[in-house]
Amino acid sequence: MVVGGGAAGMSAASAARRVDPRLPIVVLEATGNAAYGLCGLPYHLSDVVERADLYSYPPAFFRERRGIDLRLGAAATGIDLAAREITHTRDGQTERLGFTALIMAAGGAAVVVPLAGLAGRPVFTVRTIEDTGALKALLDAGRVRTAVVVGAGYIGLETAEALHARGVATTVVERLPRVLPTIDEPLAALVEEHVRAHVDLRLATDADAVLADLDPDVVVVCTGVRPAGGIAAQAGAATGPGGALLVDDRMRTSLPGVFAAGDCIAPWHRVLGRPAYVPLGPAANKTGRVAGTVAAGGDAVFAGVVGTAVVKVFDLEVARTGLTLAEAKEAGLPASATDVVHKSRAKYYPGSAPLHVRLVHEFGGRLLGAQLVGREGAAKRVDVVAAALYAGLGVDDLAAFDLSYAPPYSPVYDPLLIAAQAAQRAPVPA
Amino acid sequence: MVVGGGAAGMSAASAARRVDPRLPIVVLEATGNAAYGLCGLPYHLSDVVERADLYSYPPAFFRERRGIDLRLGAAATGIDLAAREITHTRDGQTERLGFTALIMAAGGAAVVVPLAGLAGRPVFTVRTIEDTGALKALLDAGRVRTAVVVGAGYIGLETAEALHARGVATTVVERLPRVLPTIDEPLAALVEEHVRAHVDLRLATDADAVLADLDPDVVVVCTGVRPAGGIAAQAGAATGPGGALLVDDRMRTSLPGVFAAGDCIAPWHRVLGRPAYVPLGPAANKTGRVAGTVAAGGDAVFAGVVGTAVVKVFDLEVARTGLTLAEAKEAGLPASATDVVHKSRAKYYPGSAPLHVRLVHEFGGRLLGAQLVGREGAAKRVDVVAAALYAGLGVDDLAAFDLSYAPPYSPVYDPLLIAAQAAQRAPVPA
Repeated sequence: MVVGGGAAGMSAASAARRVDPRLPIVVLEATGNAAYGLCGLPYHLSDVVERADLYSYPPAFFRERRGIDLRLGAAATGIDLAAREITHTRDGQTERLGFTALIMAAGGAAVVVPLAGLAGRPVFTVRTIEDTGALKALLDAGRVRTAVVVGAGYIGLETAEALHARGVATTVVERLPRVLPTIDEPLAALVEEHVRAHVDLRLATDADAVLADLDPDVVVVCTGVRPAGGIAAQAGAATGPGGALLVDDRMRTSLPGVFAAGDCIAPWHRVLGRPAYVPLGPAANKTGRVAGTVAAGGDAVFAGVVGTAVVKVFDLEVARTGLTLAEAKEAGLPASATDVVHKSRAKYYPGSAPLHVRLVHEFGGRLLGAQLVGREGAAKRVDVVAAALYAGLGVDDLAAFDLSYAPPYSPVYDPLLIAAQAAQRAPVPA
Repeated sequence: MVVGGGAAGMSAASAARRVDPRLPIVVLEATGNAAYGLCGLPYHLSDVVERADLYSYPPAFFRERRGIDLRLGAAATGIDLAAREITHTRDGQTERLGFTALIMAAGGAAVVVPLAGLAGRPVFTVRTIEDTGALKALLDAGRVRTAVVVGAGYIGLETAEALHARGVATTVVERLPRVLPTIDEPLAALVEEHVRAHVDLRLATDADAVLADLDPDVVVVCTGVRPAGGIAAQAGAATGPGGALLVDDRMRTSLPGVFAAGDCIAPWHRVLGRPAYVPLGPAANKTGRVAGTVAAGGDAVFAGVVGTAVVKVFDLEVARTGLTLAEAKEAGLPASATDVVHKSRAKYYPGSAPLHVRLVHEFGGRLLGAQLVGREGAAKRVDVVAAALYAGLGVDDLAAFDLSYAPPYSPVYDPLLIAAQAAQRAPVPA
């Protein structure tokens, strides 16, 4: 039994099927849609991606080809642990369904901040295909000329880009005095400047004040995600950061026979050495697969995350992995940051663009994280540091990496090597 | 005293200067040019890069700003180890010059295969700025309408691309039945097909036969590079693969006070666990820096290479690291290869292109290498495997990497993860 038909839930169901060809597998999905890439929603909004292309497979594929009983519009409402039953509503009816093993993969729910100014307005999130589809229908009908996006995190900026691409005069309002809280301020400042070149960005600003002033055609609320594993928590499952479910490396919650995966869990963070709430697509898929495999009687482990993420913000690639300096300090780690700007390609090769690299490290020792911002070369370069973080390597190791070089792709010293060399020279506090 | 003013030699001289502000430093460079990026020569040929832009710094910079006595046109001809003197010719004069420490950084010399058909023809290599400049002058004068490129390795294919871009009808002749011997045949076949779409490619072919037939305006010989550290070898320095100088991790040759760096050495290969001749730019710069630092009394080590390289072949990125399957088998390692084709971006995102990934591994255990070929996403993705190889990681580790994901840059499972998952399932021989 799987609760949730998103990336984690469908990965879990498919993995369980691979382990046991005859196991009865039910997936309860509260909405009318399953198995789509929600990271693609902003690109659907901007008309870059067709709705049909967002689905990994249609429901019929799971039902017929994989023998998975995928039930749409089935909202799980409670777990009866003693009876091994789950309660859910479907078409207004409440039903109980028995399970042997249960996988909570209910995902994350959009946090809609309680703003007085939202009352009576068309308000959307970019978290489900239903909500995004409704906003897109308005756009397609030419009924959106002005928009306010609340929140300047990943989704807020992606949404602003999408609306801007659709010709909508867009204002982004952020409560904090900076964009993208997942990167450190000097790099966020670069992104901020770039965003301002395209849309009206108001930082350190109360959204209600803006809404009172602007009267936009739509408001899109992008103020984060919270874990939606409530019914497991109510049944007694241990929770951690942000109320997310805690699991071991086999995705077992503290409840017997109850697993969890995806955006409702706090996976192990290898750099922090403790669970952290980092709701992102790759871990949702991987933890779903592990949960399904183990729940069906197979074996698999999830090695944890290192906090890698990338976002396209208009013409910038913004990538991060590990800990920011702020996060490292908050975690009590002895951290410093080294910033360099180098070229994405050989300096003489056309298309070469400045790439800003920040390394976070224990004063030239262990690597703690990296952030990269530039017009090209940030997105996948960050993965090199992600690999180093996985292995627990240090600044000296990164400086010694044998990275690829050809003029169209990199300077002879890759920007990561330049950053590592600078970090080697960074002063150690007395 | 540094012999050679290329990347390794000038890196050595500059590093020595950083260690000791007052050390007398002489660089003897046989040609009339120093400190330029020879990897940029094909792009100079194609008019993508100006000649002046190829130089990291002009000679005056090294002389005036770094106090380095850079002598151009000074060809070192012998080492008198007992007298601690080096013999060189300059302007037809033979001179002897004393040294305390000597750094051999004479680079690699183009191997010009002895072909009868070269006699009486304009023959060029793309190894020095002089030779490439002479070829470019002919191109610029409109005197090259047909060309034969001998050799289908990195430089041969880059040169063919450059000539094609200049409107030259180009025939590439290769003795072997395949292109790019540094990647395995299935991937080389993809490159071959792509090359054939642009130029006349003749594999398993004797160049003399083609030259007798075609009568091209120019012949460009791109048949590899051999280490040019002969005078150190003559003085008794130990040599290894291909006659390259052997050094320890501080770039010390077997001769006291004699260091070596760059394309005349066989650096330590971390995957092979022995020295290998892999003459490439990044290692030349890094080993030069280590040699100069240590020779001047500082300390530094070179951690070795893992054999990472990338080349642009028309519209393809071709990247490799570690060992090919052929190289692994030749080294007697228990190796198998896993091939996958995945997308460079989310399948629904515009611009997504197939990316061919081959992983070479010890039957699902230790990673030995990777090769990537595609229209995008190969060049820097290979660096993730280079990082894994540096750390001696396995297939399971690669599969567990927390790699960045956003639809414009990667599928949710990066192609490397897909390849690692496939390698995990690869059968182990009984």
